[in-house]
Amino acid sequence: MSPISSPQSSATFFPRNSVEQVEEGRELAPKFDSSGVIPVVTTDAESGEVLMHAYMNQEALERSLATGEAYYWSRSRQCLWHKGATSGFVQHISEMRIDDDQDCIWLRVVTDGKANCHVGYRSCFYRSVPVGKARNDNAELVFIETKKVFDPKEVYGDVPNPTKL
Amino acid sequence: MSPISSPQSSATFFPRNSVEQVEEGRELAPKFDSSGVIPVVTTDAESGEVLMHAYMNQEALERSLATGEAYYWSRSRQCLWHKGATSGFVQHISEMRIDDDQDCIWLRVVTDGKANCHVGYRSCFYRSVPVGKARNDNAELVFIETKKVFDPKEVYGDVPNPTKL
Repeated sequence: MSPISSPQSSATFFPRNSVEQVEEGRELAPKFDSSGVIPVVTTDAESGEVLMHAYMNQEALERSLATGEAYYWSRSRQCLWHKGATSGFVQHISEMRIDDDQDCIWLRVVTDGKANCHVGYRSCFYRSVPVGKARNDNAELVFIETKKVFDPKEVYGDVPNPTKL
Repeated sequence: MSPISSPQSSATFFPRNSVEQVEEGRELAPKFDSSGVIPVVTTDAESGEVLMHAYMNQEALERSLATGEAYYWSRSRQCLWHKGATSGFVQHISEMRIDDDQDCIWLRVVTDGKANCHVGYRSCFYRSVPVGKARNDNAELVFIETKKVFDPKEVYGDVPNPTKL
């Protein structure tokens, strides 16, 4: 079957025809969920550290594929989100991978300014959660990053915080 | 405010009171979505490779915290899922982290048998997606893992494939 081609980019997505095609094939046939998005795991191309977890809609995936820079769909702001457009911390994609059932994307990136988290840290995962025996002694989160890379007030000014309770 | 304690485990989750508490605090206050789950990124503790992307409900998170082994909520099977219960490929948690707004978990694991994907590969992300200029030459997925670690038929027998189209 012919792939679906988007007029805005060179990206083409194939329809999902069979489990074998999706799992064992060479056709990109991503699954967008009922909200039209696919989850994305973004890691540092050098250290392997998980930097953030976000979502792409079809347009964000197409733009990421076409430009080699990370675009996401901001669920809190409900808009296409070129990472770094405000902060300057653009993510350059070293490699994109897709998982077995093609319902998740992994990006390996090199980030301008080495900052990825709106709170000011290198990674969004700046706190560790004690597990098992360590948890019995103390269940408090442990800060892995103890110093912010940038001051969010300077970078974002009055832009509303995207975190929702 | 007092944390919510579960009778089944020692895990305690705090109510989400403020952005500052969630982002800058030491209280574990995870956000489960409208389906009652939180996304989880699982990476190899040694190589940093992303192995899989899954979900936990409250019970799965509590059990993972209490036992140090990875439990998930299977959305396709709608049941608690102790990874490795069928295959023997149990994931031992080296570290758990949580992100800025506490709506995603990162597990660093050591997996018995070094296999994590139901298709038979080490990682679920066994295929690369060409990006940018590389994509213009050839948009086909590239297999990063070219040999399966195990034979799914031998390990799973007649268990239905969890992949949904």
